[in-house]
Amino acid sequence: MYDLIILGAGPAGYVAAEHAGRLGRTTLLIEKDLLGGVCLNCGCVPTKSFLHSAKLYAHALHSEAFGVAVKEARFDYGKMKARTEKIQDTLRNGVAGMMKRHKVEVVVGDATVESAKAVRVGDTVHEGANLLLASGSSPAHPPIPGLAGNPYVVDSTGMLSAGQLVDHLAVIGGGVIGIEFASFYALAGKKATVLEMLPQICGSTDKELAAILQRKLESMGVSIHVGAKVVRVEGDVVHFEDKNGKTETVKADMILSATGRKANVDGLGCEKINLDFDKRGIRVNERAETNVPGVYAAGDVTGRIQLAHFASRQGIVAVNNMFGHPDICREDAIPGVIYSDPEIAGVGLTEAQAKERGIECKTLKMPLAASGRFLAETEGGRGVVKAVVGARGEVLGMHVVGSYASEMIGAAAIMIEAELRARDVQDIVFPHPTVSEIMRDVMFMY
Amino acid sequence: MYDLIILGAGPAGYVAAEHAGRLGRTTLLIEKDLLGGVCLNCGCVPTKSFLHSAKLYAHALHSEAFGVAVKEARFDYGKMKARTEKIQDTLRNGVAGMMKRHKVEVVVGDATVESAKAVRVGDTVHEGANLLLASGSSPAHPPIPGLAGNPYVVDSTGMLSAGQLVDHLAVIGGGVIGIEFASFYALAGKKATVLEMLPQICGSTDKELAAILQRKLESMGVSIHVGAKVVRVEGDVVHFEDKNGKTETVKADMILSATGRKANVDGLGCEKINLDFDKRGIRVNERAETNVPGVYAAGDVTGRIQLAHFASRQGIVAVNNMFGHPDICREDAIPGVIYSDPEIAGVGLTEAQAKERGIECKTLKMPLAASGRFLAETEGGRGVVKAVVGARGEVLGMHVVGSYASEMIGAAAIMIEAELRARDVQDIVFPHPTVSEIMRDVMFMY
Repeated sequence: MYDLIILGAGPAGYVAAEHAGRLGRTTLLIEKDLLGGVCLNCGCVPTKSFLHSAKLYAHALHSEAFGVAVKEARFDYGKMKARTEKIQDTLRNGVAGMMKRHKVEVVVGDATVESAKAVRVGDTVHEGANLLLASGSSPAHPPIPGLAGNPYVVDSTGMLSAGQLVDHLAVIGGGVIGIEFASFYALAGKKATVLEMLPQICGSTDKELAAILQRKLESMGVSIHVGAKVVRVEGDVVHFEDKNGKTETVKADMILSATGRKANVDGLGCEKINLDFDKRGIRVNERAETNVPGVYAAGDVTGRIQLAHFASRQGIVAVNNMFGHPDICREDAIPGVIYSDPEIAGVGLTEAQAKERGIECKTLKMPLAASGRFLAETEGGRGVVKAVVGARGEVLGMHVVGSYASEMIGAAAIMIEAELRARDVQDIVFPHPTVSEIMRDVMFMY
Repeated sequence: MYDLIILGAGPAGYVAAEHAGRLGRTTLLIEKDLLGGVCLNCGCVPTKSFLHSAKLYAHALHSEAFGVAVKEARFDYGKMKARTEKIQDTLRNGVAGMMKRHKVEVVVGDATVESAKAVRVGDTVHEGANLLLASGSSPAHPPIPGLAGNPYVVDSTGMLSAGQLVDHLAVIGGGVIGIEFASFYALAGKKATVLEMLPQICGSTDKELAAILQRKLESMGVSIHVGAKVVRVEGDVVHFEDKNGKTETVKADMILSATGRKANVDGLGCEKINLDFDKRGIRVNERAETNVPGVYAAGDVTGRIQLAHFASRQGIVAVNNMFGHPDICREDAIPGVIYSDPEIAGVGLTEAQAKERGIECKTLKMPLAASGRFLAETEGGRGVVKAVVGARGEVLGMHVVGSYASEMIGAAAIMIEAELRARDVQDIVFPHPTVSEIMRDVMFMY
């Protein structure tokens, strides 16, 4: 009998397995496909590689203002894709090596839960004192007529495996995934059209930040329709009602369906052990416990925050709790990033969320142009930092659009987790000149 | 009578003036040259602009591996320089506007202290209840025969005002300034030779990190001689003894003297008020107080940590103390950055420094290649993060070589200032995939 059996080797599962190994527990990790899950194989990691190459291409072409003139630049999609696949191989091997080092057994196959302490893979039943369900999520396809089975339509996985760039990409869904691919197309010099049902792109991102990114994308040739309801797809034509109710069409060479992801709960055997779950996911508490003792769940399958880093944290929390190290997974300092150009990153409450919850707060705002480094490195782009600070000065949220946002937001996560107040942050010495120091400077407005 | 008179409008002086204005105090800021001091006018800010343009040029030329092929790239030094000057104008106007908003009076002229409460500028004597001496520093030229008056020799200010790139730059001094300019030359496709007296480049930077940067610079064509003692300069030829005592020469088109900076204490009138000072600087305590009541000093003139962000912090601490808000300027979480490519950033103790002080500690080390983002965005470069953790798990230092180091090190400064332990940092959720998350991952090795 294993101390722990994990179903799914994505960022929840493999990180939990590593942690259990670190704690000296015998662990079995079952994966039906590839180590690393969606994140490594058809999500965060390959998109970052795609975006980085496209940024290099765009920067090579458009750096005249910086004194860099390029005669002719060519974007070799195939080479970029082959490089991406090599990186994914390296990372998968890294995960495999990590499992070996921590004495985690890895089995490839379809796993179904037999009981709270047993999992079947083919003809073999494995027994474990604890189970961690980390089966992830899959692209959710909305019931739009003409979407299913349409050869022009791809999901994010299809986008990443496409053999070439097309001239015009239509994107249904202007959330993080849709916007990252639209950014990729724009940076690669191709046309993209985004259709978003909500009144703004980028989901629950601060409205003002999303608007800055939208204007930037539009200046790069991306057509963005917010409040747009897609009514049907006919071959390569998307029919939608614009925000005024007018029917319009977009003809594209490829159509990306990026309208969210659904928890992988089917076929797991959840019903056999009377697990509390529905199509939104397996219900867990902040200790990552399900309603069945000894059975935990983590990551996208829990239907909470569908982000790789949240999944990893949940996985670690589950392992800590099952092996006698009480731990909780707080959700108030989970950063989110959009790796567009400029990037958007945020952590904690936005101004709108704080208001919705009736929390008394103050929003402190500064342009990144106050940063010498931002000015030195940016041409024709806007950047803003917004800090949301509570009545006692406590940092509740930090939201940034601009260069380096992704890499500096971790500092704000610490501010929130360490329960720092604006006055405490004023004393922190950030290096000068950086963009990140503006997260401190803005606190002097408190 | 003003509440405060400040001598010097660099990062110590203008930030202190802004802070005093925020506190509603009447403030006079006296500057003999330009607002912004060395940092804005001939230091950190213009070098970052130079380096960014050169990085764009180098990336345009060398991104084949990423699928970006460029036929011909040209680096227009004049255009880059003109753009840099425009940015400096913008930032100086920003400082001027900030002074206006905070009702700080600005006077241009040479200031000398008449008494602890009076400062003379030309024929006018200004009276202030408090004085803040923030006169900064100047390049220090070592007594090497043939250096002074040599038309081939420039200091950092001369480097930034040079009208063109030369084919071969010799750099005397492989500290931060020397290495940044050598990096600039290498990125711009020109030859550079660095002569450093100490056994390693980059001063007190972690030895292993400095070695990684050295190898990278060498792979870009920079010749680096450590343990090299420059004995004399003859025209465009630098004579030095190499680490084995052998005499060698370097012939270059321009010679940068970058052997440190000296405090600007001469001509200030320090002796008139019996200030405790010597050629290393004006002595201050952690409250930024000098030995004379009501007289404070901040920034490079104090001869402590010669970094703009430390200067600003000292300036704020001085103002807080003079106006009844007790504050101290701690020196254990002051980050340092080298804006080379890759960057090096560090904060707190290095392994060597901890050992020197007899502090029991553990060094946790991870390659940045463990980061999916680092792998996705890096070709042929190494990155490492090293955390120094004390006996009770407290974070004592964090040191990084690799992309984004400058913008992620602020998070480590917070870890140290908030007195987090390794176990606390493990719980922080950094976004995935980022390079910064490795600063958290490394804590699981504790």
